[in-house]
Parts: sequence; C-alpha cells; structure tokens
Amino acid sequence: MNRLFHVPLSPFCRKVRLCLAEKKIEIELIEERYWEQDPDFLRRNPAAKVPVLRLGGMTLAESTPICEYLEEIYPDPPLLPGSPEARFEVRRLVSWFDDKFHSEVTSKLLYERVNKKITGQGYPDSANVKAGAKAVKFHLDYMGWLLDQRRWLAGDHMTLADFAAAAHLSCLDYISDVDWNRSESLKDWYAKIKSRPAFRSILADQVPGFLPPRHYADLDF
Amino acid sequence: MNRLFHVPLSPFCRKVRLCLAEKKIEIELIEERYWEQDPDFLRRNPAAKVPVLRLGGMTLAESTPICEYLEEIYPDPPLLPGSPEARFEVRRLVSWFDDKFHSEVTSKLLYERVNKKITGQGYPDSANVKAGAKAVKFHLDYMGWLLDQRRWLAGDHMTLADFAAAAHLSCLDYISDVDWNRSESLKDWYAKIKSRPAFRSILADQVPGFLPPRHYADLDF
Repeated sequence: MNRLFHVPLSPFCRKVRLCLAEKKIEIELIEERYWEQDPDFLRRNPAAKVPVLRLGGMTLAESTPICEYLEEIYPDPPLLPGSPEARFEVRRLVSWFDDKFHSEVTSKLLYERVNKKITGQGYPDSANVKAGAKAVKFHLDYMGWLLDQRRWLAGDHMTLADFAAAAHLSCLDYISDVDWNRSESLKDWYAKIKSRPAFRSILADQVPGFLPPRHYADLDF
Repeated sequence: MNRLFHVPLSPFCRKVRLCLAEKKIEIELIEERYWEQDPDFLRRNPAAKVPVLRLGGMTLAESTPICEYLEEIYPDPPLLPGSPEARFEVRRLVSWFDDKFHSEVTSKLLYERVNKKITGQGYPDSANVKAGAKAVKFHLDYMGWLLDQRRWLAGDHMTLADFAAAAHLSCLDYISDVDWNRSESLKDWYAKIKSRPAFRSILADQVPGFLPPRHYADLDF
C-alpha cells in the first residue's frame, strides 16, 4: 500500500494530497509527528520534514519534486500544461505560494497560532500575527487580480498552481484567517476547487484543540 | 539583449547564471538593489526578488521555474536526466539546497554577515551565525556522503542539483565559511565544477566592502 506521512494542517502535504487524489492514486495517510525526530522517520527523510511519500518502493520527499514526479508517471489528468511558457507560469505560481506566501502569511498566522501550540513552542508572537494578517490582504488581492483575468490561477485550466494556492488557503481557512469577501472571483475559484472530489479528505481533517469554523467544510460558504 | 537582474552573492541568481552559461545563452548582468523596491523593478516582479530574467520578450521570476524553463527550451546540454526517478532525485536535491540549506545555513551566515550590512539592517545576530556555523557541518557531511557514492550529487552526470549546491557553497566560500578539509570527495567535486567555463563569471564577482579569500577564485584551492 502507498503511504503518505503527513500532518493535516501542512500546505505542503495538502498540495501532494490534492495531486494524489486528482490522479486517483490511492494512499494510506499516516500522521507523522516530524518535530519529534523519530529515527525511523529520519531514515526516510534526513530533512526531517513532511510530506514523505512511499510509492511503488520509492521513498519521496520535498513536495514540489513529488508533484513533478507524479505528473511524469501519472500524466492523466494533467496538472501541468503543454507549452514551456504555460508550464513556467504554473511553476512560478507554485513557488510564489510555497515561498513568498508561505514566509509572509502561512508561517506568520498558521505556524504562530497552531504549530507552536502543537509542537510545544509556546505562545504566538503578536508582531508576527499582525504582519501575517496585513500581508494576507496583499496576497488575496493579487489572487483576485489574476482570477479577474483567468479562469484558473495560471490560465484556462486547473493546474498544480491552483492546488498549491488552495493548500495554503484551506489551512488558513481552518483557523478563520481568510476574508472571502475581499474578491468575488477568488471566492468563486475557491468554491470550484473545494467542490472537487480531491478536496474531500482535506475538508474532513480534524486537529485536536482547534475547531474549524462552520463554513470550512461547507461547499456553499 | 537578454538581461538578468541579480545581485552577485545570491545563490538563487548564481544557480540561474550557471544554467545560462552552461547552455551558452548570452545575457547582460544587471545588479538590482531589489530591497529598495524600485517601482520599475516591482512591475517586473511583484515578488520583489531577484533573479528576474528578461529572455526573448518574456519576464521570468523564481529561480527553479526559470531553470526548468531554460531546460525545456534549450535542452542542450541537459541539466535534468531522462528517467522520472533520476529527475526526481535532482529536483529533491535542488529543493534541499534552496529550502533546507538556505534556511539553516545561507540565511544564517551569508545574510547575517553580508546582506544585513548591504541593505542597512544592522549587525549580525551572533546566535544565528553560531547556528549556521554548526548546521553547515551537517550539510557538508551529507554532501560528502552522497559524493562518496556518486560522481555528481544526483548521480553519474552533472545536473541542476550540482549547480544549486555550488551556488550556495560558492557564496559561502566568498566569506570563508566552507571548511574544504571536511571531505575529500566534496573538495574534488567543487574543484571539478569550479573549473567549468560556466563558473568564470561567478569567480570574478566582487562585492564592495567584502574581499574574498585568495582561494576563492583559485582552481587549485
């Protein structure tokens, strides 16, 4: 059986889960307390991070390289477009979310509020939370601006860029940190992606000690 | 003329410069004080980061997506191998250096010692420098371990993984933060990659206020 070692509120794990589900690759999800640095887990991934995917005898780490690999061996349905220019735009946006959005927003809101508590690192730093709450507005506006011009984030088709973005936003939505009234196009896009079968397991996630808002799993939010 | 907006001691810019040079794509290098957030520059890249590449009418940002794009439109010489499994290993290592090595080492040594001064952010944080000096040993040992088994970092051929690693190490070497005596295999690998014509412009870099050690540009270091 294929296995994904993950934690529920990790945008990097969620991106891989969305790819796996969209490509109909069955996996067993295993929660991994990666911060405890269990020796078995470190053998699987010396980087000591999730996600780690066991797939057909291989042990794979690093979320974007995993998604690129899945795309190469399970090309249907495609999550990268055909032309080099369109593929570039998808990869640029994946990097935008996993690097810039991650450092300016996800790490400052989600990690301060949730990860610190779960991993026993104390209380949220209020300056970070404030900076994250300010930065998320710029990012939601940027996404709204893209989606005013495009059906999906990187163009006419759903791609890995949409999964990267939805992975971050869905984690933040779990802790009520997304203002969906900021852009109609953004809200429509999230409703579309949320209603895909690939999203179901993410909407069912439960993290002890953190109750999601009622709209989190509601397809008509 | 194609143009790369960059700063000399950025591992992300150096990775792209190595790819461009290896593929013999001529470019004009333009130093960009990205932290000053010039409006013209923000129009080119709203992420406000270097590298930004102007190539054949396109404006490209995010270093790994740029390298993937270059690989697709200029496949010769190849910097990604043919099989999905081997390509995965290259991409995993690129992520290793640009994410883990970057956050544990580059940001704690180079950014504390050089970037803070250049961008007027004050003095190095000694706790960060200490943490970086400790972490670099683990990383050099990991590279040495890989290179005891492989000719190049990801296998039998030179790939983007070698360029990602050499981009970080060459920046650290500029400020004398690499102990080349830690692994014979690692030193041999760096001598090999340093002697490539693609490396010449990197060895000629000069950053005002920071004099590189004599061995920095020496091919027989």
